[in-house]
Amino acid sequence: MAKLGFIGLGIMGTPMAGHLLAAGHALFVHTRSQVPQTLLAAGAQPCTNGADVARQADIVFTMVPDTPDVEKVLFAPGGVAEGLSAGKTVVDMSSIDPIATKDFARRIEALGCDYLDAPVSGGEVGAKAASLTIMVGGKQEVFDKVLPLFQLMGKNITLVGGNGDGQTCKVANQIIVALNIQAVAEALLFASKAGADPAKVRQALMGGFAASRILEVHGERMVKRTFQPGFRIELHQKDINLALSGARQLGLSLPNTAMVQQLFSACAANGMAALDHSALCRAVELMGHHTIAPDA
Amino acid sequence: MAKLGFIGLGIMGTPMAGHLLAAGHALFVHTRSQVPQTLLAAGAQPCTNGADVARQADIVFTMVPDTPDVEKVLFAPGGVAEGLSAGKTVVDMSSIDPIATKDFARRIEALGCDYLDAPVSGGEVGAKAASLTIMVGGKQEVFDKVLPLFQLMGKNITLVGGNGDGQTCKVANQIIVALNIQAVAEALLFASKAGADPAKVRQALMGGFAASRILEVHGERMVKRTFQPGFRIELHQKDINLALSGARQLGLSLPNTAMVQQLFSACAANGMAALDHSALCRAVELMGHHTIAPDA
Repeated sequence: MAKLGFIGLGIMGTPMAGHLLAAGHALFVHTRSQVPQTLLAAGAQPCTNGADVARQADIVFTMVPDTPDVEKVLFAPGGVAEGLSAGKTVVDMSSIDPIATKDFARRIEALGCDYLDAPVSGGEVGAKAASLTIMVGGKQEVFDKVLPLFQLMGKNITLVGGNGDGQTCKVANQIIVALNIQAVAEALLFASKAGADPAKVRQALMGGFAASRILEVHGERMVKRTFQPGFRIELHQKDINLALSGARQLGLSLPNTAMVQQLFSACAANGMAALDHSALCRAVELMGHHTIAPDA
Repeated sequence: MAKLGFIGLGIMGTPMAGHLLAAGHALFVHTRSQVPQTLLAAGAQPCTNGADVARQADIVFTMVPDTPDVEKVLFAPGGVAEGLSAGKTVVDMSSIDPIATKDFARRIEALGCDYLDAPVSGGEVGAKAASLTIMVGGKQEVFDKVLPLFQLMGKNITLVGGNGDGQTCKVANQIIVALNIQAVAEALLFASKAGADPAKVRQALMGGFAASRILEVHGERMVKRTFQPGFRIELHQKDINLALSGARQLGLSLPNTAMVQQLFSACAANGMAALDHSALCRAVELMGHHTIAPDA
């Protein structure tokens, strides 16, 4: 059994850490607020800071909200870097900036340690069910070493490439998911306003080239008007911001991604930031003064 | 065996008519240019005009390029309406304006006849393989009567609603397909420019919420740089025009659909109108001065 660390015990981190504990590993933990009682009862050992976690554990997982949080957890005074010694491994499972990630990896490797970026998709449901999709960037041998631990938390686990490529893949995922939601929203709104039954249209489209996971899951939410999260608009806004700030740094134009960010902002301005991202359809509904289906 | 008519023997109509003939039905045909020799050899009976087809056949199929073509074939002097008598059925399988379709249906029904709009998806390959998706608008009893004939041409056949709703569903399909292609293009371009392998990113994304038929089929074309059609950009431009003119009539805003039409125009302006619609990625590639993968 390994000595593991886990930093960031929020909605995602708590069940993920729980799976590592349940497999019998020693788990040293730290989080901004209080360590959940369930984890303490299962044997998690609380540490005073990230440096302390890194001193006790051989592999340290981080799962925090955003790029500055990862930087702070790793490199601020009392952070992970302070407690690392050569041969240890840092695995960042947060969803953050791919370009900053390459820098974080270089700084960790300069300490004689290994780094993986391993953001996930699948949300709270996937975290609890240990069915997360995990997109990994880093060296093959480090991936091979950590893979049995990833398999305790997820199902669809891919080494995409070198450091940063896991985060890049996650950004690509969030671009497609947002734009596919918008695609379904524009199509079903058109169908509904033209007088067709959006539920039947969705059903007919599922068999052809319009078929997607988003048409299946989020299309149904739009028709049934069930917008409780799921994945909140305010979180998807953060991910699309990574896409757009990255595109600016890389010199790329992503016109539909930029438009969707504006439509997410319209949703947030109308009090929908905490709704499921399928409520992105509300922005075009508001503009057209028509809903895909009557609100329940 | 039924007496059938088929008007419009182009790339799609010819194999579709061939399937009706092969099942042993009598087939009266008319087309703008010459009736293909293969159909004549199989027993198709050429007629001088649409009115003549409608006099001979009980169910008349039309498969022509655009809304004005359907109007001409049905209602111009010598057109189908001139030869119809009460109890006959018109089935328009062209992809045209849903709003004009409702008007065409009313005018055919005023003659004591039935009307179905039944546009298809699946292209030349689907037409030849008799595997088309067919989206039908009209009365249930008319649908039930024509269904065995649809089954000679397609596989995924849905009665979506009343007249016009088949065309509305097709427009919704084309909106989603175009926007999903753009989603994959923006995501893979971001990934490639950020230094990740777009083929590996596509593979990793196939297991999660970004999964779609478009990521599978068109994503592969973008990575492998295989842009021979398939479905040509100039045809998708026509369908998106139906979406946008419909949206204007209906008072809807479809911002990403409008953007994609501009990007299709950029492709056409750069000599790509006859390429497969997966080449939509070329527009953002040109803007970013970077290709998802090296051209072959």
